[in-house]
Amino acid sequence: MKIGIFGTGGVGRTIAAKLARLGHDVVIGTRDPKATLANTEKGPMGGALFSEWHKEHPTISLRTFAEAAAHGELLINATSGFGSLEALKLAGDANLGTKALLDISNPLDFSRGMPPSLFVSNTDSLGEQLQKAFPQVRVVKGLNTLTAGLMVDPAMLPERTNLFLCGNDAAAKDEVRALLKQFGWADADMIDLGDITNARGTEMVLPVWIRLWGALQTPFFNFRIVKAG
Amino acid sequence: MKIGIFGTGGVGRTIAAKLARLGHDVVIGTRDPKATLANTEKGPMGGALFSEWHKEHPTISLRTFAEAAAHGELLINATSGFGSLEALKLAGDANLGTKALLDISNPLDFSRGMPPSLFVSNTDSLGEQLQKAFPQVRVVKGLNTLTAGLMVDPAMLPERTNLFLCGNDAAAKDEVRALLKQFGWADADMIDLGDITNARGTEMVLPVWIRLWGALQTPFFNFRIVKAG
Repeated sequence: MKIGIFGTGGVGRTIAAKLARLGHDVVIGTRDPKATLANTEKGPMGGALFSEWHKEHPTISLRTFAEAAAHGELLINATSGFGSLEALKLAGDANLGTKALLDISNPLDFSRGMPPSLFVSNTDSLGEQLQKAFPQVRVVKGLNTLTAGLMVDPAMLPERTNLFLCGNDAAAKDEVRALLKQFGWADADMIDLGDITNARGTEMVLPVWIRLWGALQTPFFNFRIVKAG
Repeated sequence: MKIGIFGTGGVGRTIAAKLARLGHDVVIGTRDPKATLANTEKGPMGGALFSEWHKEHPTISLRTFAEAAAHGELLINATSGFGSLEALKLAGDANLGTKALLDISNPLDFSRGMPPSLFVSNTDSLGEQLQKAFPQVRVVKGLNTLTAGLMVDPAMLPERTNLFLCGNDAAAKDEVRALLKQFGWADADMIDLGDITNARGTEMVLPVWIRLWGALQTPFFNFRIVKAG
């Protein structure tokens, strides 16, 4: 399947590498591909430079947001929260069309130090802002409540855990679920919370998620919902 | 042990009944005990009138916030979020002293309809507001991320699940943990997130918790944190 991913950070790379291993035709989109490849400054999370990573993943193309959007039959937003609206704007309405977009972004604001706060929350969410700004795109919020390595390999954990999905379009959620099943998620693991306004709930998981990372000394954990009888 | 509980709603009653069964000497505090006993209007969550409930729990005294605070060696805040600061003010500094206070309240605002939003979040929390307004009280935020029946009976769930605690005073957290162990929580179930600012994280769990209640069609669920080996 042809998939366009927005964002060249850890989440975008991890998703892209997994999809390529699964045999998908992946294009990563960025504002300026030459600048991304020429960049010699590591991001706040450390990790390899994009150019180093790209040498080890030569089948994955790096293009503009617009080209990645045009390429994908399914789109994935893995940009930083502050960059998401701009990335979709640069992708362009014509290239985005009515495609399903899995939105993994979180509205994290690190400007006041650690732990980050959210720059939108409570009575709105980044998922809703994207859906509102691009009404024809079929936004599905998901995968934003766990670390990248676990998104694509849930079996790293010793028990099955849960994902939360929401979005206005049932068919788009089906497309996303089909892809996530290839990552190892079972239908029963993926809890559908309803329409995109429920992104308020799932984005507001981040403040406790970040604090649990600190308390557990690892980001490699996830939530398992345990229900009575 | 002498325990003072603020709040006559479902959470306060459930905790009070459990503590009484465990042999503790419990006083529930309210603004006006006569009014609470005379009340004939059911609250938004339905349930029995306080007077009906009280007939079945005659060993539990209903007094003023001040009297409940004076009675307790350990205090528990189970008021609605909007009423918490006022309840502690009515309890009075002299009666609150430097006691440990387990704060279960959540800053839920139902005024805009369902699901509720939070009236404080993100860069502040109700737990912090209580601690700031009553600096000598040793506030421990906890139990606010699950339904009342499960707070006092975690074995209702088929697997062990987790609680999140935070607060500035290590000894107060120990006092709270000792009490929660009597409810059936194991030390390993209770994750200490650090100081009271971490209440921002645990109070912001409510928006997804409420939505999960809807998706799962029951409030009888809890989070189990699954960590990579």
